[in-house]
Amino acid sequence: MCRFLLYKSNSPILLADLLTRPAHSIIMQSFNCKLLIDKRKTMNGDGVGLGWYMEPRAKGCIFTSTLPAWSNINLQRLAENIKSGLVFAHVRATTGGTVTSESNCHPWQYGNLMWMHNGNIGGFDQIKRRMQNSLKEEIYLNIQGTTDSENAFAVFLNMLEDPLGRKEFSFDELKQAMLATIEQINQWLDEAGVTETSLLNFAVTDGQTVVCTRYITDREREGASLFYSSGSEFRCEEESSTYRMIKANKREDVVVVASEPLTYEKSDWMVIPSNNLLVITPKLNVRLYPIVDQYWNPHRGHQKNVNQNGC
Amino acid sequence: MCRFLLYKSNSPILLADLLTRPAHSIIMQSFNCKLLIDKRKTMNGDGVGLGWYMEPRAKGCIFTSTLPAWSNINLQRLAENIKSGLVFAHVRATTGGTVTSESNCHPWQYGNLMWMHNGNIGGFDQIKRRMQNSLKEEIYLNIQGTTDSENAFAVFLNMLEDPLGRKEFSFDELKQAMLATIEQINQWLDEAGVTETSLLNFAVTDGQTVVCTRYITDREREGASLFYSSGSEFRCEEESSTYRMIKANKREDVVVVASEPLTYEKSDWMVIPSNNLLVITPKLNVRLYPIVDQYWNPHRGHQKNVNQNGC
Amino acid sequence: MCRFLLYKSNSPILLADLLTRPAHSIIMQSFNCKLLIDKRKTMNGDGVGLGWYMEPRAKGCIFTSTLPAWSNINLQRLAENIKSGLVFAHVRATTGGTVTSESNCHPWQYGNLMWMHNGNIGGFDQIKRRMQNSLKEEIYLNIQGTTDSENAFAVFLNMLEDPLGRKEFSFDELKQAMLATIEQINQWLDEAGVTETSLLNFAVTDGQTVVCTRYITDREREGASLFYSSGSEFRCEEESSTYRMIKANKREDVVVVASEPLTYEKSDWMVIPSNNLLVITPKLNVRLYPIVDQYWNPHRGHQKNVNQNGC
Amino acid sequence: MCRFLLYKSNSPILLADLLTRPAHSIIMQSFNCKLLIDKRKTMNGDGVGLGWYMEPRAKGCIFTSTLPAWSNINLQRLAENIKSGLVFAHVRATTGGTVTSESNCHPWQYGNLMWMHNGNIGGFDQIKRRMQNSLKEEIYLNIQGTTDSENAFAVFLNMLEDPLGRKEFSFDELKQAMLATIEQINQWLDEAGVTETSLLNFAVTDGQTVVCTRYITDREREGASLFYSSGSEFRCEEESSTYRMIKANKREDVVVVASEPLTYEKSDWMVIPSNNLLVITPKLNVRLYPIVDQYWNPHRGHQKNVNQNGC
Repeated sequence: MCRFLLYKSNSPILLADLLTRPAHSIIMQSFNCKLLIDKRKTMNGDGVGLGWYMEPRAKGCIFTSTLPAWSNINLQRLAENIKSGLVFAHVRATTGGTVTSESNCHPWQYGNLMWMHNGNIGGFDQIKRRMQNSLKEEIYLNIQGTTDSENAFAVFLNMLEDPLGRKEFSFDELKQAMLATIEQINQWLDEAGVTETSLLNFAVTDGQTVVCTRYITDREREGASLFYSSGSEFRCEEESSTYRMIKANKREDVVVVASEPLTYEKSDWMVIPSNNLLVITPKLNVRLYPIVDQYWNPHRGHQKNVNQNGC
Repeated sequence: MCRFLLYKSNSPILLADLLTRPAHSIIMQSFNCKLLIDKRKTMNGDGVGLGWYMEPRAKGCIFTSTLPAWSNINLQRLAENIKSGLVFAHVRATTGGTVTSESNCHPWQYGNLMWMHNGNIGGFDQIKRRMQNSLKEEIYLNIQGTTDSENAFAVFLNMLEDPLGRKEFSFDELKQAMLATIEQINQWLDEAGVTETSLLNFAVTDGQTVVCTRYITDREREGASLFYSSGSEFRCEEESSTYRMIKANKREDVVVVASEPLTYEKSDWMVIPSNNLLVITPKLNVRLYPIVDQYWNPHRGHQKNVNQNGC
Repeated sequence: MCRFLLYKSNSPILLADLLTRPAHSIIMQSFNCKLLIDKRKTMNGDGVGLGWYMEPRAKGCIFTSTLPAWSNINLQRLAENIKSGLVFAHVRATTGGTVTSESNCHPWQYGNLMWMHNGNIGGFDQIKRRMQNSLKEEIYLNIQGTTDSENAFAVFLNMLEDPLGRKEFSFDELKQAMLATIEQINQWLDEAGVTETSLLNFAVTDGQTVVCTRYITDREREGASLFYSSGSEFRCEEESSTYRMIKANKREDVVVVASEPLTYEKSDWMVIPSNNLLVITPKLNVRLYPIVDQYWNPHRGHQKNVNQNGC
Repeated sequence: MCRFLLYKSNSPILLADLLTRPAHSIIMQSFNCKLLIDKRKTMNGDGVGLGWYMEPRAKGCIFTSTLPAWSNINLQRLAENIKSGLVFAHVRATTGGTVTSESNCHPWQYGNLMWMHNGNIGGFDQIKRRMQNSLKEEIYLNIQGTTDSENAFAVFLNMLEDPLGRKEFSFDELKQAMLATIEQINQWLDEAGVTETSLLNFAVTDGQTVVCTRYITDREREGASLFYSSGSEFRCEEESSTYRMIKANKREDVVVVASEPLTYEKSDWMVIPSNNLLVITPKLNVRLYPIVDQYWNPHRGHQKNVNQNGC
């Protein structure tokens, strides 16, 4: 049971207003999740990571820690001090056999790119060698940890031209690389005869454009939950002391994507349908694209959302 | 919501058989507690500590960590390797304002003595100065952290003669020092006009005798839960793959005290009544003494056990 | 052997340009110090801390860690990303009996104030109780660790009116509180009959004004080394690839104070004489005041600088 | 600049007597090394690891930490409490590009086998893929970190039959696997055209037999230093308060192998010549075998020992 959250806006937000102060904070109250399916794992105590960009065309910064968010004093102090217009946040619970270490904490970065994942590649062990053998040398050697998520990032990087050196990427380039990554993983899973289901909620950014997916290798079931909300400002309303997505005008100045709604106004949160890719452009336009492959099914669901899942 | 566990036996147990392997392991599954009252704190992720003695008259050893037990690989490796006949174990959730640090992890030791606490001193801030000013210089200077629990240990040490130098203590000496500690804390709380309730489940050992308490500063309510079980062996039954307290003969070769039953055989676990002190002698006799003071009430309860508490 | 460094300027500096990139970086190469006296302690591996202010009248931010600076990936990533016009940095080597924990890492903060110390209070154990008993309740209860340095900060805070609530302090107020702190510590040391020498290089700021001292409780010897440099910019010269204090005009736009010169241009670094207090005003004026008390000696020295010291 | 130490005896030693109490303790004073060549790296602060066996045919136990040994309170407490007849200890300084994490700390274990390395594979990046592609699936998937040392262990394991399941191995089997590992690494280095020198001081044990090497891929230069000493007991002499290898009788009851002599009696320490393999049998016989390959040179040296090196 992991969760992630990303924020993009033209107006920088104090990280605390996004991460630690809200009553339904995704990283502080992560152990009190209601959309949970794996009853054996009721909290996210195996690592936390933040990523943020100070300036549009500069490298992002990452803070990762194996200390749980709720007792992580450095994380809380940084959140009270740093403002950013593009934030990635991730809380993690290990699944069987994965070591808790800072190398295994999301997000990862490479050049200006940043990546995180909620879900897991079912049967990862059976395709790990295929994944690593497909990589260019410098990408292979850059892998620091042992997770499926970091290896998936490596596959994504391998789809791009000069991922380390370039400062920006077109949204189409990122989108195509993401689709190619999923297609490639599916092909390896098929080759290896894996029957386990994979949950591939990926998010990537170059500091300007964000691309993320809600995806499951199953035609019938829903992917790990993913929501988004947009408005003119995300802030705490003084009278109610609760956080809200303010919609003061028609413009979308803020877009938030998260594994769970961050506020109690459920109507402010749109479900991202399973097996769709969402793009947030540098100008904050949001676009949704169905991922039409062997797992595409426009009539999926009508059932309750069942996968809030591993990773 | 903290919890503790102690084990005393003539036959050393592999720590893993006590701590990490049982299905209802107190330290691994601590986030899935059913006796819980504080709904805001549903797990114990703010530190873990183990203490054990290799030989009867030698100093004990302590391992403490701010990493949660379930992702703490050193703890798991040690548990798979170390055998001991006297074990203390503690999982901790911080309460408001207390920093998560190894200095604030239970148990603490001083000479051959080891101490842990489940509960909290209500209004600790209002009596902290009184506590510290009562201490002999070397005990005052030895305090490393900021918790009520460590300060209560200091008060206990202050009641003993030469706590650092001596290798063993009579059971009566430890019992009297424990009673004097509680009496003294109560007196300071009165002087300071504190009205909050304190939960004082303390455990102490010199490596041979164990003294522990279930205590609450309230005549009507029950203290934080505390159970004990005894038998000839605590081990995993092969057919059912579950841990049990084996009662092969009339002798008590093993005594376990824990905040919650460790096995599914509830009938094997006796409730320690609120405001009682339990002694386990070096020869494994168990004795229970009521703590008769202003909070003594033989007719307490008839209500459900309500305090599984802070710390 | 600890060391500290502080930077104040109207132009924010990337922390990496101050802390991690320079060849003679105070925190990365701290284990290769030439001004060292205690040969048993040749490096600073017991903790590192950074403090910085993003805006003049806002609370500062702190990052502390027990991992050595040179292998501390979060510290290096933050340094590559954060810019600030007021920075405190400290590397620490424990002295006998002090636990390595984040609670014992400099700097500390309280409201808008930030504090660090290079040196040690000789005979601290003998005056600790006097120090703590002099404190107002909220300041006493705020102490998290066990160091002489944090206790000295508490004494300093106790000299100020409303240290938690106020956003700024006049330079005279900070200066008087600093002098009063040293005077008070000296009085306690006298009362306790302490004969050991104390090295009191303190630095404090409210986010605008900086006050620091080089001080020793000895009329003949020199205090722990302390230098300052000022100029129009502190940056890396492209041709030589070395960092320099640029003096492009008469204005002082940057002031750096450090336990050791940060650059190879020794002539750019002025020695702060022993038993002096240095003030950097919000407008970057630097003023030096002799601390005239029982340890004042205008004819001190003529001997080599001997104290690069403990802490 | 790493260092390692191993101890084998029929009489268990308190780890503290080997690791933390001696004046010239390899892990505590590791930052004060005189045989050092890389002047940029004067201490070992990037992680420490201990491994020990409680019983001959049981799995060993490992404690690893990224906190430096000298401020690592858990390590110090364990060392004061655990006795073992077979101990591995390692202190580590990272070399360029390797992350400090517990996954990258020596020793590693797999089944009953334990491994550590002092030195480095020159040009590791150029042969990493060859190494990993040579591995059986379960050994490949077991790799947790990114070091050359752990990958070399994987190659070694790959040479053995059922390395996970078996409880013991003949000394000849371990010796042959070690020689095959070195030969295979050399072959890959040749294939990749690597010209950098490798320093391959490896140590491995199954809990009974120890095999270790001093090896360099150079015909002229000496490998990283390695010494051994044997006697009837390793203990502190009361009169001089220094540790010594006692030679009370002709029997060899204790064998110690270390990167540097542990005591001031230099005559007690024999140099293991470069490009030799040393075996310690379960009965404590010590045998030395030259590794006769393209880097063998019986006339090497006559020069000072120059390599105390990276890793």
